[in-house]
Amino acid sequence: MLEMIQELYPICRSLTGDGVRETLAILGRSIELEIHEVPTGTPVFDWTVPREWNIRDAWIKNSSGDKIVDFGASNLHVVGYSAPVEAKLSLEELSEHLYSLPEQPDRIPYRTSYYEERWGFCLAHADRMRLEPGEYEVCVDSVLKDGHLTYGECFLPGDEEGEYIIHTHVCHPSMCNDNLSGIAVAARLAEELAAQPRRSSYRFLFVPGTIGAITWLALNEDRLSDVRGGLVISGVGDVGQLTYKRSRSGSGPVDRAAEAALAAWPGGVEVEAFSPYGYDERQYGSPGIDLAVGRLSRTPWGTYPEYHTSADDLDFISAESLADSLAACRAIVRVLETDRTYRNLQPMGEPQLGRRGLYRSLGGDGGKDAELALLWVLNLSDGSVCLTDIAARSGLPFGTVADAAERLYEADLLEEVTRG
Amino acid sequence: MLEMIQELYPICRSLTGDGVRETLAILGRSIELEIHEVPTGTPVFDWTVPREWNIRDAWIKNSSGDKIVDFGASNLHVVGYSAPVEAKLSLEELSEHLYSLPEQPDRIPYRTSYYEERWGFCLAHADRMRLEPGEYEVCVDSVLKDGHLTYGECFLPGDEEGEYIIHTHVCHPSMCNDNLSGIAVAARLAEELAAQPRRSSYRFLFVPGTIGAITWLALNEDRLSDVRGGLVISGVGDVGQLTYKRSRSGSGPVDRAAEAALAAWPGGVEVEAFSPYGYDERQYGSPGIDLAVGRLSRTPWGTYPEYHTSADDLDFISAESLADSLAACRAIVRVLETDRTYRNLQPMGEPQLGRRGLYRSLGGDGGKDAELALLWVLNLSDGSVCLTDIAARSGLPFGTVADAAERLYEADLLEEVTRG
Amino acid sequence: MLEMIQELYPICRSLTGDGVRETLAILGRSIELEIHEVPTGTPVFDWTVPREWNIRDAWIKNSSGDKIVDFGASNLHVVGYSAPVEAKLSLEELSEHLYSLPEQPDRIPYRTSYYEERWGFCLAHADRMRLEPGEYEVCVDSVLKDGHLTYGECFLPGDEEGEYIIHTHVCHPSMCNDNLSGIAVAARLAEELAAQPRRSSYRFLFVPGTIGAITWLALNEDRLSDVRGGLVISGVGDVGQLTYKRSRSGSGPVDRAAEAALAAWPGGVEVEAFSPYGYDERQYGSPGIDLAVGRLSRTPWGTYPEYHTSADDLDFISAESLADSLAACRAIVRVLETDRTYRNLQPMGEPQLGRRGLYRSLGGDGGKDAELALLWVLNLSDGSVCLTDIAARSGLPFGTVADAAERLYEADLLEEVTRG
Repeated sequence: MLEMIQELYPICRSLTGDGVRETLAILGRSIELEIHEVPTGTPVFDWTVPREWNIRDAWIKNSSGDKIVDFGASNLHVVGYSAPVEAKLSLEELSEHLYSLPEQPDRIPYRTSYYEERWGFCLAHADRMRLEPGEYEVCVDSVLKDGHLTYGECFLPGDEEGEYIIHTHVCHPSMCNDNLSGIAVAARLAEELAAQPRRSSYRFLFVPGTIGAITWLALNEDRLSDVRGGLVISGVGDVGQLTYKRSRSGSGPVDRAAEAALAAWPGGVEVEAFSPYGYDERQYGSPGIDLAVGRLSRTPWGTYPEYHTSADDLDFISAESLADSLAACRAIVRVLETDRTYRNLQPMGEPQLGRRGLYRSLGGDGGKDAELALLWVLNLSDGSVCLTDIAARSGLPFGTVADAAERLYEADLLEEVTRG
Repeated sequence: MLEMIQELYPICRSLTGDGVRETLAILGRSIELEIHEVPTGTPVFDWTVPREWNIRDAWIKNSSGDKIVDFGASNLHVVGYSAPVEAKLSLEELSEHLYSLPEQPDRIPYRTSYYEERWGFCLAHADRMRLEPGEYEVCVDSVLKDGHLTYGECFLPGDEEGEYIIHTHVCHPSMCNDNLSGIAVAARLAEELAAQPRRSSYRFLFVPGTIGAITWLALNEDRLSDVRGGLVISGVGDVGQLTYKRSRSGSGPVDRAAEAALAAWPGGVEVEAFSPYGYDERQYGSPGIDLAVGRLSRTPWGTYPEYHTSADDLDFISAESLADSLAACRAIVRVLETDRTYRNLQPMGEPQLGRRGLYRSLGGDGGKDAELALLWVLNLSDGSVCLTDIAARSGLPFGTVADAAERLYEADLLEEVTRG
Repeated sequence: MLEMIQELYPICRSLTGDGVRETLAILGRSIELEIHEVPTGTPVFDWTVPREWNIRDAWIKNSSGDKIVDFGASNLHVVGYSAPVEAKLSLEELSEHLYSLPEQPDRIPYRTSYYEERWGFCLAHADRMRLEPGEYEVCVDSVLKDGHLTYGECFLPGDEEGEYIIHTHVCHPSMCNDNLSGIAVAARLAEELAAQPRRSSYRFLFVPGTIGAITWLALNEDRLSDVRGGLVISGVGDVGQLTYKRSRSGSGPVDRAAEAALAAWPGGVEVEAFSPYGYDERQYGSPGIDLAVGRLSRTPWGTYPEYHTSADDLDFISAESLADSLAACRAIVRVLETDRTYRNLQPMGEPQLGRRGLYRSLGGDGGKDAELALLWVLNLSDGSVCLTDIAARSGLPFGTVADAAERLYEADLLEEVTRG
């Protein structure tokens, strides 16, 4: 995953434009990615697909003609969606178009202006402080015109009805944790899932933030009834602890799967309540959509100083964290694939497990987890309680509970009622 | 409010009688108060309006003819509703009619005997201990006969259906916190509310405790379906912390308004559960009435040593506490007037707030409370969640949430469904 | 109860056989016990009544002909349900049939093999370590053949519909806490209850563990709808704290009664959640039966080292603990007999209690528990809240609440709606 991130890092992505296309093309090498191009002006719910933005170059020169800010050095230097400009200005006039972080003077901030036309440059505050009065020449060689919004979709069909959405945003330029980490983990998860049998379907969406989610939802409104929930993956490369953010309802299949899968995760997992801000879980969790989509991150966005700055670079992420995040996604999917609701077919008293070889035949020496799990599954499986709920109520690991259910099912003591 | 209390302090109030009339007449100078006179013998639910009690004088003289207890010095000296008596008794006989507080030897207790005919005197225990054996002469020059129960009502109509009851008791003689404080704060609140536009109606009741509430309820049974809840105001002048006692259901509009209004109140607010004792919230909270009426007090009744003694005097209350209590009432009413349930008219994904000038247009620099509030209101406003609940779930101040709703409503993003 | 336990202690009980019959015969001296004999082979839900097991003698002799393990010394020496055997074996061969506790080298463990035919001996690990290589002679003089499963039932009819099951297991050989303590306490409770008027019926079951409960349930399936709940009594003789284990629903009449009765129990009571293992509460709590049957124990099974060993002897239990456990049972039954749901007949405001002599007539001196209880019962008795719930919500002792309800009922202020 680190290699993919290294390859994607230099590309200047934005809401729309060739940077996104280039990024999706690289993903398309390892997964089957359907590329969608949605024309500018397409109405999507309350929004309209914006004009497409592309940029060739941008710089600020001082009166000596030296390039003091250069898009070539970092694509963060230009405010995303900056309108084209060629002008000479005084420092005072220029200042209204400059963005810097006084508290982090060596870092370039990340800024965009998608829905109001303007232009601007971002630079390290230390560099900004060094600017002397005088005339400056600015150039933004960008194109903002009708075109398309581009997104990628990888659909992996399953044996049963119902699908889960795995969502990640692809609109951020050269920043690694936000969100090349999410892109890499989602792509690798898709690659793995494509190679294995699946009961559920999984739809991987690589889309620009906000407008991309809204566009997909608007164009697929008739498909939403088949969505059982989903997971937004973003900011999963830093060395912090894992964080699972619950969906709006807090009790969808992915919520239960995440809590079951991550209950005893090494290093711990912070579980936080839903809130209607953050990443695109807020679109899935809007009241008219109301899909139970949670989010997996490591350190929450906005709480680390590198967030949305040039310091979110290749050094900020680690291969171990990426691998750990992928493992967590894999564990969540495993629970989604396994969680079922069963009905006990011998519900009058306990069935005789010993006769079926499911239980120690020599009484009197206490119980063990595997046997407790058999009893819990039998006791709670009245056709309305799923395995994740049984794990939560019993305090037993989900895997132990699922193994017990499997053994009981094979012994014809359970029938499957529905998915978890 | 302190001036009003100073004027009301000397008056000898009781369940019925001229003291209540005189008190209501003083209130009537600043608010439009309708005076009701309910005849003795009127059946009110399980009760009957009692005889009216008035008293001119009362004293105990020792064998030397010195007045050792004198109603003229404090109206607490006489047990409320004492029957008339003129008699000579030994100290032993007299003692059966004396009440004092051994643990607070310098204070006169407050006692009543409304529903059993007797007579008695209250005095400081220190004075009682000084009584020597011998003959005493007692006089209670009272009249207990058919008359009326008197109460005052100030109704402030609002633009919409539904009213709130603001209730305070007027039956206590010369004690300031219990309940001249409640009378003064309720009267001032009525005066303020009368001068401003109102969505809801407010009915201020100045009534004797227990029998007054029951009388009003019995005579207005057909009106109760229009009552959305209410607030009992009592004991709001001492320097202790504010206390809000929840209504029987614990989740009525006034409960939500009080918790929203007082969430970050300077000095803090103690919130206590409903219990069927205390002041007249117990009548409103009886199972056949079941109106969601809470109570605002400062230090809870019965937990301060000055309670129901002569030490609950003008020195025991403070102008600052009265002002703070009034401010709390005002804040609760403001929430009642503002709390609404809305429906998001653009519920599919987030609406584009930037286009409407509701959101910073420059992305990437984190959120602020006002913007979070916009998102919370949009996310939870599915037509079933009111603003106080949104404030509680989001952890944002009610005012911020209400401002957000106002802005969204003006931008045609919300429609009003019902009151909170 | 200690005397009864001393008498029962030497008897070799098992799932079936004469030891159980002898035990029930002794119980039958003090209570009216109906003895049921269910033939081997009777299908009971998923199980079949097993063959009957009886044993005369069993021993191991060393090569010198000395009995080194002797059933006559302790019936724990033989694995319960051991098949008959007469054989000579090497130490190595013998070892596969020996059970001991390395961590408790002086104690004989308790082992059974009900549902797989085998034979075996239990012995102190210290003794086992002393066995030298050589030839051993073993004898188990047992009979395992078609016969009966025996259980005892004592039904005490009440005045109203509905019964409670009091259940205890009688299948354990010479161990005192598990479960002669349960047998003795249940028998004494039955004796006491038989001598007093009862609103509810009580059915005492003295049955072998698991198969006994299942047998009774299978043979009485048509009667289960009349069962309102029940209590398993086991392990109630040790000196540890009382433990109440909730039924599967956690909110049945016995759960509420136990929590009300034991709320302020001297020494404290640990309340634990339901789990589908332990004693026969797991059969009552199976999903097809789902009767709200809790369990009363002292130190929970399996958590004390003496559990299922020869150290669970007459010294391990105490008369005080047995008496305390009986008192707890008695208290629970008292609540079951008393708990009712009432409807307040004067629900509009508070009724005038003073007029009925139910309330101090002299106002102004604060409340007491008995009066608070009157107010709580009146306030919550809307025909849906029972006295145990009123006790829980008010924080008042159940007895105080029940006394208040009794006084209000006698004053025609309540009507009885249903049992608690």
